[in-house]
Amino acid sequence: MPSQFPPREARSIEQYQAEVLGLVRPDSRVESVPLAAASGRVLARDVVSPVSIPVFANSAMDGYAVRYADVVAAPVTLRVVGDVAAGSSADPMAGPGECVRIMTGAPLPTFADTVVPLEDTDAAFGPAGRAPGDEATTTITHAPQAVGTYVRHAGEDFAADARVAVAGTEITAGVAAELAAVGLVSVPVRPRPVVAVRSTGDELVTDGSPLGRGQIYESNSFALAAMLAGDGADVRRSEAARDDAEALAAWLDEVDADLVVLTGGASVGAYDVVRDVLLGAGGTFRSVRVQPGKPQGWAVWKGTPVLSLPGNPLSAALSYQLFVQPMLDRLLGRPAREWLTAVAGAAWTSPAGRRQLVPVRLSTGADGRLIAVPAHRRGSASHLVSSLAEADGYCSVGEDVTAVAAGDLVAARWL
Amino acid sequence: MPSQFPPREARSIEQYQAEVLGLVRPDSRVESVPLAAASGRVLARDVVSPVSIPVFANSAMDGYAVRYADVVAAPVTLRVVGDVAAGSSADPMAGPGECVRIMTGAPLPTFADTVVPLEDTDAAFGPAGRAPGDEATTTITHAPQAVGTYVRHAGEDFAADARVAVAGTEITAGVAAELAAVGLVSVPVRPRPVVAVRSTGDELVTDGSPLGRGQIYESNSFALAAMLAGDGADVRRSEAARDDAEALAAWLDEVDADLVVLTGGASVGAYDVVRDVLLGAGGTFRSVRVQPGKPQGWAVWKGTPVLSLPGNPLSAALSYQLFVQPMLDRLLGRPAREWLTAVAGAAWTSPAGRRQLVPVRLSTGADGRLIAVPAHRRGSASHLVSSLAEADGYCSVGEDVTAVAAGDLVAARWL
Repeated sequence: MPSQFPPREARSIEQYQAEVLGLVRPDSRVESVPLAAASGRVLARDVVSPVSIPVFANSAMDGYAVRYADVVAAPVTLRVVGDVAAGSSADPMAGPGECVRIMTGAPLPTFADTVVPLEDTDAAFGPAGRAPGDEATTTITHAPQAVGTYVRHAGEDFAADARVAVAGTEITAGVAAELAAVGLVSVPVRPRPVVAVRSTGDELVTDGSPLGRGQIYESNSFALAAMLAGDGADVRRSEAARDDAEALAAWLDEVDADLVVLTGGASVGAYDVVRDVLLGAGGTFRSVRVQPGKPQGWAVWKGTPVLSLPGNPLSAALSYQLFVQPMLDRLLGRPAREWLTAVAGAAWTSPAGRRQLVPVRLSTGADGRLIAVPAHRRGSASHLVSSLAEADGYCSVGEDVTAVAAGDLVAARWL
Repeated sequence: MPSQFPPREARSIEQYQAEVLGLVRPDSRVESVPLAAASGRVLARDVVSPVSIPVFANSAMDGYAVRYADVVAAPVTLRVVGDVAAGSSADPMAGPGECVRIMTGAPLPTFADTVVPLEDTDAAFGPAGRAPGDEATTTITHAPQAVGTYVRHAGEDFAADARVAVAGTEITAGVAAELAAVGLVSVPVRPRPVVAVRSTGDELVTDGSPLGRGQIYESNSFALAAMLAGDGADVRRSEAARDDAEALAAWLDEVDADLVVLTGGASVGAYDVVRDVLLGAGGTFRSVRVQPGKPQGWAVWKGTPVLSLPGNPLSAALSYQLFVQPMLDRLLGRPAREWLTAVAGAAWTSPAGRRQLVPVRLSTGADGRLIAVPAHRRGSASHLVSSLAEADGYCSVGEDVTAVAAGDLVAARWL
């Protein structure tokens, strides 16, 4: 079967993105997973706090729970008539001129309105120090600034029924802490999208054996699997496929995934098997106005979306960022990643009429500007696998730009 | 046993960092893991490419392998006398006025010095298109810019014996691709540091049951476990411990880890059990000039370093970033993370004499400046767990700064 040629009219990145995003829809299923296993997962529902946090007014410091009126004219000496530890449910009473020793996090006794930290009492001074806990009195040396100083008020962090996290939120360390703090022990998350990934090409060697003329070591599946896993997919990586249309079709028949990502065989060459197989199944190939990553294609194979990415390592990795990663976002209901604005730290050329994607190293200058320097060791050829290894981000240069000067603004993302 | 009080002389962040870094030494052990399972691991040795990459000159495009001298005066029509696919070891000959069809990645025939892409031939034009492969001649419509155009030269990416990655490199998607591309099927990595993490405190509730007066839900172990895993540790998370010195000591006797991280019980309160237990074992507690995160401590328990972090969620998380994360870097031989320079996007106050750490949201302005805005919903109290959930980075404000104005420069890191 000959390749379709010439490719249909070229598409912008956004046009092709919209096309492939149409292949998937947000997963409506919900899994409940223990919070300790939820890191990196995506919330399926808004989370509402069942309680106020804190549930009770408590002390922000180790020190003394006092009435502000008693200490406003410090230095003043108070009788210590009680003790509240963190975790205690005690609510000791104290009269005028009296106070209660209190630990960080312990509930503020009802009589008190203010906390004086140890550092603002005589307990904190003297060369030998003194163990708190054995005193009958304490001298407040510095008056608190206002009523309520060092008191954490009930509901200060969340009111009961406050929405603490919205559906689509990725569970970072901080989000996990927040969900734990409102009492969740398991969380509703979206299933991980199952993504099958496979490189294709007769030239690929996968077992590390010496290369013959015409051969290269397969690398795309490793990069894609790592990016997919980092973006929340359940990755099924297969060994590279030979350029055998029948075998590829048979594998596609068998594969069980939410999405299949293939690399290689996508161009307009006579042996571009992925292209031929997917076109034969009613697929679509586009010339996308991007460098690298121009030849892109997709099909729906027995209900499963299949994406065909170019085989050059850099093209494949950047095509992943542009097209596959947003499909995962959509499946998971996660917001799309934002672009940053960076300053080019060097000059380079860019092709007319095509968006250029450039692996970069990102840093900041002394003035706080984000600086992007191409990570290429040499040139900008799409086969330089070293550039991706050295990059921590990538830039996007507009279609109409043919030369980037040092100091120009470019769109950038962290990798 | 009473707490030691007052704390010994305060330390700067750097002084305390140096102290705890002295507790661990770089792991010299090497594990060999399959490349497909190596994502996030840290290389134990430099990796040298056993081969030149590419191993042979090859075509960067689908098109025709030509002699530059034959096409410099394009348009010119050449006879097509052969065909080289990617993965082919063929090396067809062609005489003057002849060319060979070539696919992307296929080895450049010995006779040829230049590749003309399909787009620069008559094969690319005409409304119906034409399948490449069935032609006897092709007309080169545009001359290549120079000899060697669209040729990828042997060794262009790596020379044989080139050092492609150094020990201490974290295996990102790009690094995995690079290691695969030079033929590695397994990689030498450092063992994951085994880190036991446990929260302590009688006030902690871990099963989601309703909170009584004085109680809070435990959250630190979830944040720390997520951060530790993200930083390459093999995490052993235990349920929260009660304030029971004997039980804590018994657990420390049993725990099998490269590093133990405890939270809570580290302050100067009378019930600060972690402090008491670690001091009893010859440990050291310091007042560190940082907000939040002032009370820090460590001990070596039967040969295992134990770190005591404050119990406030934000203090614990930021203390992790300052002290635990660098210990992992040291164990793994990974370079320390760098600080970025950002611009404060709002005004806030900072305590005199203490470094201030502020969870922030990072974005960029229209001029490419990295902007840091505090992620606090309200105030800057260290108990606001929501601020960490909303942050994607944190800022560090100098000890001598008491007020940050919008537009001031601050040190920042991504979380």
